[in-house]
Amino acid sequence: MTSLKNDIFIKALFKQPVPRTPVWMMRQAGRYLPEYRKIREQAGSFLALCTNPELACEVTLQPLRRFSFDAAILFSDILTIPDAMGLGLYFTEGEGPKFKNPIKNAADIAALPIPDPYVDLRYVTDAVSLIRKNLQGAVPLIGFSGSPWTLATYMVEGGSSKSFQKIKSLMYNEPRLMHQLLDKLAQSVASYLNAQIEAGAQAVMLFDTWGGMLSGEDYAMFSLAYAKQVRQLLKTEHNGQKIPTILFTKGGGLWLETMADAGYDALGLDWQTNIGAARARVGEKVALQGNLDPVSLYAQPAIIKEKVQAILHSYGQGSGHIFNLGHGILPDVNPDHVKAMVDAVHELSPVYHS
Amino acid sequence: MTSLKNDIFIKALFKQPVPRTPVWMMRQAGRYLPEYRKIREQAGSFLALCTNPELACEVTLQPLRRFSFDAAILFSDILTIPDAMGLGLYFTEGEGPKFKNPIKNAADIAALPIPDPYVDLRYVTDAVSLIRKNLQGAVPLIGFSGSPWTLATYMVEGGSSKSFQKIKSLMYNEPRLMHQLLDKLAQSVASYLNAQIEAGAQAVMLFDTWGGMLSGEDYAMFSLAYAKQVRQLLKTEHNGQKIPTILFTKGGGLWLETMADAGYDALGLDWQTNIGAARARVGEKVALQGNLDPVSLYAQPAIIKEKVQAILHSYGQGSGHIFNLGHGILPDVNPDHVKAMVDAVHELSPVYHS
Repeated sequence: MTSLKNDIFIKALFKQPVPRTPVWMMRQAGRYLPEYRKIREQAGSFLALCTNPELACEVTLQPLRRFSFDAAILFSDILTIPDAMGLGLYFTEGEGPKFKNPIKNAADIAALPIPDPYVDLRYVTDAVSLIRKNLQGAVPLIGFSGSPWTLATYMVEGGSSKSFQKIKSLMYNEPRLMHQLLDKLAQSVASYLNAQIEAGAQAVMLFDTWGGMLSGEDYAMFSLAYAKQVRQLLKTEHNGQKIPTILFTKGGGLWLETMADAGYDALGLDWQTNIGAARARVGEKVALQGNLDPVSLYAQPAIIKEKVQAILHSYGQGSGHIFNLGHGILPDVNPDHVKAMVDAVHELSPVYHS
Repeated sequence: MTSLKNDIFIKALFKQPVPRTPVWMMRQAGRYLPEYRKIREQAGSFLALCTNPELACEVTLQPLRRFSFDAAILFSDILTIPDAMGLGLYFTEGEGPKFKNPIKNAADIAALPIPDPYVDLRYVTDAVSLIRKNLQGAVPLIGFSGSPWTLATYMVEGGSSKSFQKIKSLMYNEPRLMHQLLDKLAQSVASYLNAQIEAGAQAVMLFDTWGGMLSGEDYAMFSLAYAKQVRQLLKTEHNGQKIPTILFTKGGGLWLETMADAGYDALGLDWQTNIGAARARVGEKVALQGNLDPVSLYAQPAIIKEKVQAILHSYGQGSGHIFNLGHGILPDVNPDHVKAMVDAVHELSPVYHS
């Protein structure tokens, strides 16, 4: 077990004192980096990159060579589990992820296997081990998964959706089947995240990209209930180290109180949610991660600095804040603007920890 | 001045006693109705339909022949104002609205005219007069406009957007220009809505479809501030009748308190926002309109009835609730399911007004 040279990310998740606010960025390994685009081109496809542990390791480490981020996050896709279940993930230019064999009926749900991560998702656990080794304890490695609800949306819709008609029709008309699917997914997600933890992930994050498309009642029953189930099944310790957990529901700002009771150490916030107001609502229970509007990174560096300051000020004094964007970085942001954000957090945050 | 045979929609907006909860539906004149599709085909295009007062009147009245709605809403598009400003609105199959001449720079903003609704948008005021005449006082007629912020997003992006990169870059980097554009739009929207009121609209609604894509601070400065300006410029009375006003920000559930102070009589709620919780937050100040998930209408009628009951129960006892969807009806809903919703409101709501 390598001890961490920089553990402020982990400490902030547990709301322990830190000298400054830690910072990382959702989708920090990605298309905005020319060195990423080069490897992506060599790999031939996004999926080829995800499924090759050496290449996944390389692109995971790329942003850390440029920016003083306080965490690395596994380079992977949120839809690896349904792919391992046999749905046949593929990507089409401009249309995002799709499945060759989407879920169509009760028989499809009954037939879904719960993947063995060490066999069916071996390329992920291998990537985690390799990244962890190559990080040499510089910063912690975050593992992640899509949430059961979010995975289910893609599996039933067959890809991205605007209105979520198919999955919601299933949910309204056949709630028992919906619960059966979500239960299988919760088991699969927990086993997948536990395998990432065993392979070396030092924190894990659940991405509930589409929970915010539900009504509050449906969110509680069909998304949050299964995020809770995942949390209950997670290892909370590995090799004597506590493993912090983060729950991010895009569009979940209305439901922070119930999310804070789901057992996660931190909540990710989208940019619509004011972080100071969020802290007043749930900051006693959980740490908060976020929440700069990703589009802010198109602004001039001086303006980015002002926006960073506003968020640090809004959160206020003390630990429990991990700086991040409110969603993934957009593909054509100028990397210099990312540096402006990171530099601003380094420069402006120590005063909030004195 | 025809007196209204059914004025419960107007009364509920002013929180006056009503025998049951009024109900109408965003996009109630639309593609889910076969009789609409027939007229749409005859017209040749969506825009041809909007710009022909006789046809716009006909499709406005169609849903009232089928369902016991308590209000009619002008059939039109939210982007008529930018079109009247010379941006050249057109529609492409599957990609939504586009502009031939989007706003590109300061000169474009400076050159934008403020349309004279009686000249440049005459087809709208003519449609309003005609619909009002044909309604014969059966139910009130709602006029509407896109909000300044929402109009600006389409004008700067050139159409629909996912990340709103162009408009937000303008907002962050050139806030003075952004305010100049929004001020022109607020003046145009107010004059447009006032013309609709003079032509016969008995209530008006501002659709802020994209306000929810902003941070709370940016929403207050760039969207709500201009909704307020519109409100201040609106006629509050016409021919001795008070004209109620409704503000709907999709994704605005976090900001109801500030929205309730903008001077509108009612707030529209999307389906993510729990209406009972919303009433507890702002129900003393404003009426509330909403908020069934539009996708619920794909559920079986018995389930639709349960969902209606849950919303009525959540709002609770007393006036100030107008039943509606949380966003526009989806194009391929079965009209029988709309009837199930309307019937449920008629059957289940009187007990909340006893």
